[in-house]
Amino acid sequence: MFKVNDNYLKLPGSYLFSTIAKKVNAFTAANPQAEIIRLGIGDVTQPIAPAVIEALHKAVDEQTTTEGFKGYAPDLGYAFLRETIAKNDYEAYGCDIAADEIFVSDGAKSDSANIQEIFSLDNKIAVCDPVYPVYVDSNVMAGRTGTYDPKSETWSDVIYMPCTAENNFCPELPKETPDIIYLCFPNNPTGEAITKEQLQVWVDYANKAGAVIIYDAAYKAYITEKDIPVSIYQCEGAKTCAIELCSFSKTAGFTGLRLAYTVIPKELKCGDVQLHALWARRHGTKYNGAPYIIQRAGEAVYSEAGKAQIAEQIAYYHKNASYIFNGLKEAGYTVAGGVNSPYVWLKTPEQMNSWEFFDYLLEKANVVGTPGSGFGPSGEGYFRLTAFGTYENTVKAIDRIKKL
Amino acid sequence: MFKVNDNYLKLPGSYLFSTIAKKVNAFTAANPQAEIIRLGIGDVTQPIAPAVIEALHKAVDEQTTTEGFKGYAPDLGYAFLRETIAKNDYEAYGCDIAADEIFVSDGAKSDSANIQEIFSLDNKIAVCDPVYPVYVDSNVMAGRTGTYDPKSETWSDVIYMPCTAENNFCPELPKETPDIIYLCFPNNPTGEAITKEQLQVWVDYANKAGAVIIYDAAYKAYITEKDIPVSIYQCEGAKTCAIELCSFSKTAGFTGLRLAYTVIPKELKCGDVQLHALWARRHGTKYNGAPYIIQRAGEAVYSEAGKAQIAEQIAYYHKNASYIFNGLKEAGYTVAGGVNSPYVWLKTPEQMNSWEFFDYLLEKANVVGTPGSGFGPSGEGYFRLTAFGTYENTVKAIDRIKKL
Repeated sequence: MFKVNDNYLKLPGSYLFSTIAKKVNAFTAANPQAEIIRLGIGDVTQPIAPAVIEALHKAVDEQTTTEGFKGYAPDLGYAFLRETIAKNDYEAYGCDIAADEIFVSDGAKSDSANIQEIFSLDNKIAVCDPVYPVYVDSNVMAGRTGTYDPKSETWSDVIYMPCTAENNFCPELPKETPDIIYLCFPNNPTGEAITKEQLQVWVDYANKAGAVIIYDAAYKAYITEKDIPVSIYQCEGAKTCAIELCSFSKTAGFTGLRLAYTVIPKELKCGDVQLHALWARRHGTKYNGAPYIIQRAGEAVYSEAGKAQIAEQIAYYHKNASYIFNGLKEAGYTVAGGVNSPYVWLKTPEQMNSWEFFDYLLEKANVVGTPGSGFGPSGEGYFRLTAFGTYENTVKAIDRIKKL
Repeated sequence: MFKVNDNYLKLPGSYLFSTIAKKVNAFTAANPQAEIIRLGIGDVTQPIAPAVIEALHKAVDEQTTTEGFKGYAPDLGYAFLRETIAKNDYEAYGCDIAADEIFVSDGAKSDSANIQEIFSLDNKIAVCDPVYPVYVDSNVMAGRTGTYDPKSETWSDVIYMPCTAENNFCPELPKETPDIIYLCFPNNPTGEAITKEQLQVWVDYANKAGAVIIYDAAYKAYITEKDIPVSIYQCEGAKTCAIELCSFSKTAGFTGLRLAYTVIPKELKCGDVQLHALWARRHGTKYNGAPYIIQRAGEAVYSEAGKAQIAEQIAYYHKNASYIFNGLKEAGYTVAGGVNSPYVWLKTPEQMNSWEFFDYLLEKANVVGTPGSGFGPSGEGYFRLTAFGTYENTVKAIDRIKKL
């Protein structure tokens, strides 16, 4: 008789955003007149930039002729896109990353969930707490996290690195040495960034400890301050210890188009085994590439017109973030993030826990946010609002909250 | 110090089609004047159908406004597509499959590689031999296959079910009881189909043995004969033992657009655990859906115009398959497949092994095919040619082979 992967059964409840969706659906069903404003899930709302639309139409038209038709893409992505990324996202920042160290994929979610697969099951992971739930959940599903304690909401074999107001949302080096360290900066959910100097400490630590850093830079397009690195490869020595995950989702509004890339430098090795070779093998065996037309869309993000249009979108979301940040501050909330990030992270008021505040906001202001505890135990007592709504809705939502 | 997933290191050599690509590149470099015809990798060549192109353009245009913009897709696929599939691919054939038992994804390759993840590591798999290499390789990477014997080119913990001329390319029930049975019909690589009566034997066996069948129906659009099932759910009892994988790649030329779906009936359980729930959890945690515009393209495949245009494409490839089949037969080869399939499977002549015949064909006729041994030990001495080229090239290639 076949048996299932028991690790799946250890996962408590459903994926955070599915739970939120269910709660919102139930509320809407009971209150059909309520005008809900969603500042919960980190999904963008601005239309796709004209330069990208143009590239999509052009690529679609190519598929109408035998000459222009594109079948299976190269396993690791089209050269035109990988070279454009290498030039614009690395060479331009003084990082020595070659086009063939870049793997194109359909999403940073997939990559951040799948990357653990190339590591041994007895490796120990360390995660920021709070953090994007996919890092821990994907390791749970693989069987790498030990047993779950429902009381503390933690796994026995995961090293949690609290990121709270007490340490300015920047984790301290862990006491126990991890094998795999997940870092996400600018951070989801806190919205706080890490300076180059602070990140260098992590790179040095990883190289010394023989750990690998999985660096999620999905929000790098929102960096506004000068001393914040856009890539971990701006730090000395990162190529021997770090994998970097990047996404077009938040940079160019590709949440519905699906495009991302992961960088694995060839120098990154365990003994004489390149992680690059393992990830290439995974791509070759278990994936068939992102659609050609989407890869052409990604290329257009880096065109002159594309860059200008996308800068405008980012500015639009930054304006939202400022409105949220300042509005909440005026209303007496303690807030973080919002400067190098589309996320504002607030302390829940009056000892409310995160889900209580979620319900309170949904009922009283018809605003949907994300409970901090959904991102890990140290997220309890916090709450995330995103700047990805329309400006009008953002203003309306914050003004409602201010009136509570 | 971090460690890698050792199972990856057990994989012998690289993925079959990467090896072929390297050999062809080397030959082309040495013989730049040679006009290579590729009937190797199963990639389509006909342009995308006009109805699909129209749907793509329309969906792209929707992304230009805030109202039309689509962000994250529903985890399991848009309802419009899942309902269209349920109606056209199941209801139309008398199969009781609900829209919410259909999971939309970016490819049957990904799905067939990832599906093993929801099962326990100590489950034993059975595969047809020869077979699409992804089934075995993905299980090797997970650590489910034991040790590799380079001499027999087999894994100690895999049950191989030979499909050769001796049994008309239809596997016999295995002596040892497997937990997971991979079946692919019409088969890749042999091009042979299974009758409904033969498939019913497998369904009854799986239900009795408590095994689950992973049924790869990627080539179902090529079925021409009446007693061949287009879905395993046409067999009585399949809903309690079978998962079905389907793809738009070969049906509608989507190899570069990337769209597929997997069916997991809710009745399919291990104890009281639904496999449906596990796969849903995997989608929710590790995947973010196929692009909206591609899902709209998939929907258009089922429109009246789409159906007619795609039937023409399939007829085009069938014409190629017949030319290959008949041409090789005339030239004295022993051939199979080609009737319910875009693949023709030939016996290599004069005791040549599969790779010897690959080199021979590449050098003497400048034709690229796929060595049968790349699909498993019982594929040795066979060779696969695909009907996915242009008609002109197909004729040219076969005529060259006939002249050898």
